[in-house]
Amino acid sequence: MENLTMLTDLYQLTMMQGYLVNGCRDKEAVFDVFFRTLPFKGGYALVSGLEQVVEYIENLTFREENLAYLRSLNLFNEDFIQELRNFRFTGDIDAVPEGTPVFPYEPLIRVKGRIFETQLLETAILNLINFETLIATKASRVVAAANGGPIMEFGLRRAQGPDAGTLGARAAFIGGCQSTSNVLAGERYGIPVSGTQAHSWIQCFPSELEAFRAYARTFPDGCLLLVDTYSVLESGVPNAIKVGLELEAEGHHFQGIRLDSGDLTYLSREARRMLDEAGLKSAIIVGSNDLDEETIFAIRSQGALIDAWGVGTHLITSKDSPSLGGVYKLAAEGEKGIFHPRLKVSENIAKITNPGIKKIVRFYDRAGKAMADVIALEDEVFNDRKSLTIFDPIQTWKRKTLTNFHTRELLVPVFRGGKRVCELPKLQEIQAYAKKELNTLWDEVKRLTNPHRYIVDLSANLFELKQQLLLTIHNDIKANNQGVE
Amino acid sequence: MENLTMLTDLYQLTMMQGYLVNGCRDKEAVFDVFFRTLPFKGGYALVSGLEQVVEYIENLTFREENLAYLRSLNLFNEDFIQELRNFRFTGDIDAVPEGTPVFPYEPLIRVKGRIFETQLLETAILNLINFETLIATKASRVVAAANGGPIMEFGLRRAQGPDAGTLGARAAFIGGCQSTSNVLAGERYGIPVSGTQAHSWIQCFPSELEAFRAYARTFPDGCLLLVDTYSVLESGVPNAIKVGLELEAEGHHFQGIRLDSGDLTYLSREARRMLDEAGLKSAIIVGSNDLDEETIFAIRSQGALIDAWGVGTHLITSKDSPSLGGVYKLAAEGEKGIFHPRLKVSENIAKITNPGIKKIVRFYDRAGKAMADVIALEDEVFNDRKSLTIFDPIQTWKRKTLTNFHTRELLVPVFRGGKRVCELPKLQEIQAYAKKELNTLWDEVKRLTNPHRYIVDLSANLFELKQQLLLTIHNDIKANNQGVE
Repeated sequence: MENLTMLTDLYQLTMMQGYLVNGCRDKEAVFDVFFRTLPFKGGYALVSGLEQVVEYIENLTFREENLAYLRSLNLFNEDFIQELRNFRFTGDIDAVPEGTPVFPYEPLIRVKGRIFETQLLETAILNLINFETLIATKASRVVAAANGGPIMEFGLRRAQGPDAGTLGARAAFIGGCQSTSNVLAGERYGIPVSGTQAHSWIQCFPSELEAFRAYARTFPDGCLLLVDTYSVLESGVPNAIKVGLELEAEGHHFQGIRLDSGDLTYLSREARRMLDEAGLKSAIIVGSNDLDEETIFAIRSQGALIDAWGVGTHLITSKDSPSLGGVYKLAAEGEKGIFHPRLKVSENIAKITNPGIKKIVRFYDRAGKAMADVIALEDEVFNDRKSLTIFDPIQTWKRKTLTNFHTRELLVPVFRGGKRVCELPKLQEIQAYAKKELNTLWDEVKRLTNPHRYIVDLSANLFELKQQLLLTIHNDIKANNQGVE
Repeated sequence: MENLTMLTDLYQLTMMQGYLVNGCRDKEAVFDVFFRTLPFKGGYALVSGLEQVVEYIENLTFREENLAYLRSLNLFNEDFIQELRNFRFTGDIDAVPEGTPVFPYEPLIRVKGRIFETQLLETAILNLINFETLIATKASRVVAAANGGPIMEFGLRRAQGPDAGTLGARAAFIGGCQSTSNVLAGERYGIPVSGTQAHSWIQCFPSELEAFRAYARTFPDGCLLLVDTYSVLESGVPNAIKVGLELEAEGHHFQGIRLDSGDLTYLSREARRMLDEAGLKSAIIVGSNDLDEETIFAIRSQGALIDAWGVGTHLITSKDSPSLGGVYKLAAEGEKGIFHPRLKVSENIAKITNPGIKKIVRFYDRAGKAMADVIALEDEVFNDRKSLTIFDPIQTWKRKTLTNFHTRELLVPVFRGGKRVCELPKLQEIQAYAKKELNTLWDEVKRLTNPHRYIVDLSANLFELKQQLLLTIHNDIKANNQGVE
């Protein structure tokens, strides 16, 4: 990825200059990254994008040409430009590891440091985390729908720009896809790449059979033939069988066929029968054509005989839910390490933020299944030996007593004093971790439609703090004390 | 942008090796980029992204590390790797200029050259053109809905990755947006940047009034205050008025306020009344919060008093239609400049391609309004002095006779023999051109909902060629001549 220092909203820079001008050079702040609503009306999200955030922060530096551009806007003073020239991130970051299932309101990333620095980070962090988390989540749904049939991601041509194709392929792999068509993503992230031939290949030869033979000659052991250029059952499959038998006769393994149009249920069943009758029982059938989790689920339940799936547009653009509304909200501000919790009020109860420096505690039962999460204040301790009663922060009469649990804190230290303090796992490790993590969720929570809502409550202390702050602010507004004199 | 040479689908590379292995090193091909369906159920699309395509092609080169990666896949032979080492594009490209309204099936880009080269280009061209065209089109709709009220694009944090934010800001500017919040887009493309302060700024001061005063102190002549942190009408607007009057008393111009939540119609009318009564008649009201063309249209028609609009997620992700289905299809193949028209059949009549080397002719009436487009073969001539009867290529009984017209060919030469032969216009010029071009369309075609369908017909010659080829292929399939022996 390129240096993303300038990938920010102008108002971060105007506010930064404002902090300097108004004597807040050393003011400190804690910001939380969280989202309020799960995408796809689903039961979980799979957090992704942290590696790119780390890379962004480690490379944060304004070059002279950047400063020249900013100066040309006639907005900024030289004191500020000079601060930018020496800018680097010196704060602390904690984050939930990539591939962890997460839920609304949980702080996925917690950024602590001089507000002059932490303010700048908002835009790029949200851009990276929102997109990759969205695509990893979508991919995990597609993978679940295919029930073990491998998913090949090949949406690059419809992705929202080059990064969307490449970061999307990375996130899709974390979500469980087996490969990508995107060569750059393969080179950069070590994702297995896959792909064979397009309709234009078939059209470039005098006949379909000659096109198939030419491909078999080139890749005798990786020959997956696209059979729908003319007519799947009248021409494509018969020609593929002919070439498949020729390959097998020469001692090669014929890989199979790809269906890219028409009714995949009917065509796959007919094609399977024809392949089997010809003795090509180990040849696979790949299905593609505007697929998503719903279509794959429906086609499979109708008895389609498809061994692997190519998924493009719907996955890489997250077509039915193309944005995750992650936000970056002030949770505390202070100086010299002493912080005061802050919240933002709103007419909309769902938009009121959770104040203070927080952590996420996940409660597991003895079988290792996740029972509930509690968002708590950083210094709270939960004792495995005692039972704990948790309650819904809005419908507070909804209570649940946890016993016989063990806990895990999801946020782990990533930066301390601007230095990275954790190793970044390899992408294959993240994929394996995500798979293991998804296994800790009940199937009911992972259901594609109408999933059971996973419990995320606030600790009693955090709940109490929030109520107190809300009361104070409302009294202040009533007393016209928000500064209206 | 980074070098995008590796931004391709693996199958382009496997096919390229296949062309070499099968003696097609010098085979030539013509590919068309086109889409089949207009996004947003709208009446037009605004083509965008050509500058990035040109940059991509001019920088096409495989580096040694790329070749090492490809070699590691154990798919490619050394002859092929050697060809890639010397790869550059040596063909011809014609394209419709950025900012031109275009319609389904029209070749937006026509690529002609050795198939070994032209095959590679498919993925990156589609990625760039699909996304930017989508966003430019969406932006032009948002701009139309605001009816002259400036649009500030600020979707970066929800964009699908860094490029989506930056290329999206570029495309949104072409579509008529006035500015972007994205500093990188401002630096790279010269787009005006805008932005003031966030809720976190307000929260960082002991009171809203102090926060406003601090901002006014920093930017006395660019002071647009966010008034919804606590309560818009009880606290935000009264405090903004106080600071506005203080600024004006000191001889500055108070810019105005931004509403980012709640009912924008009601709040903007109340805020306008309060500002006017305080004597701040020239202070503007900016509205934001999950806006798109429909919401802006609805709020405006209810009498909202909003002067400018901030539009984020819906625009930058094209939320209601997040992909444009542009494709890259073989139209002809040949050798040494002699081409044979090709088409791809399909059960779905809409998916049958148009064969041959084609151009787009736009017919204007004497007032300069676009009446119809005709997709024609490259060598066809249309005489302004004669009348011309055109017909719908599917419902062929639908005919229209054009008289008193003048014509313009939309495709212009961009590359000849691998060398760029056109100047790339400045972004501001493209925006001005797009505005002029949209004025050539009837309002009925630009209507946001249920627009009138603009006529795009095939020339009689192209129609005849297509029918002949279809007949031949169908006869071949029936006679089992697609190679099934």
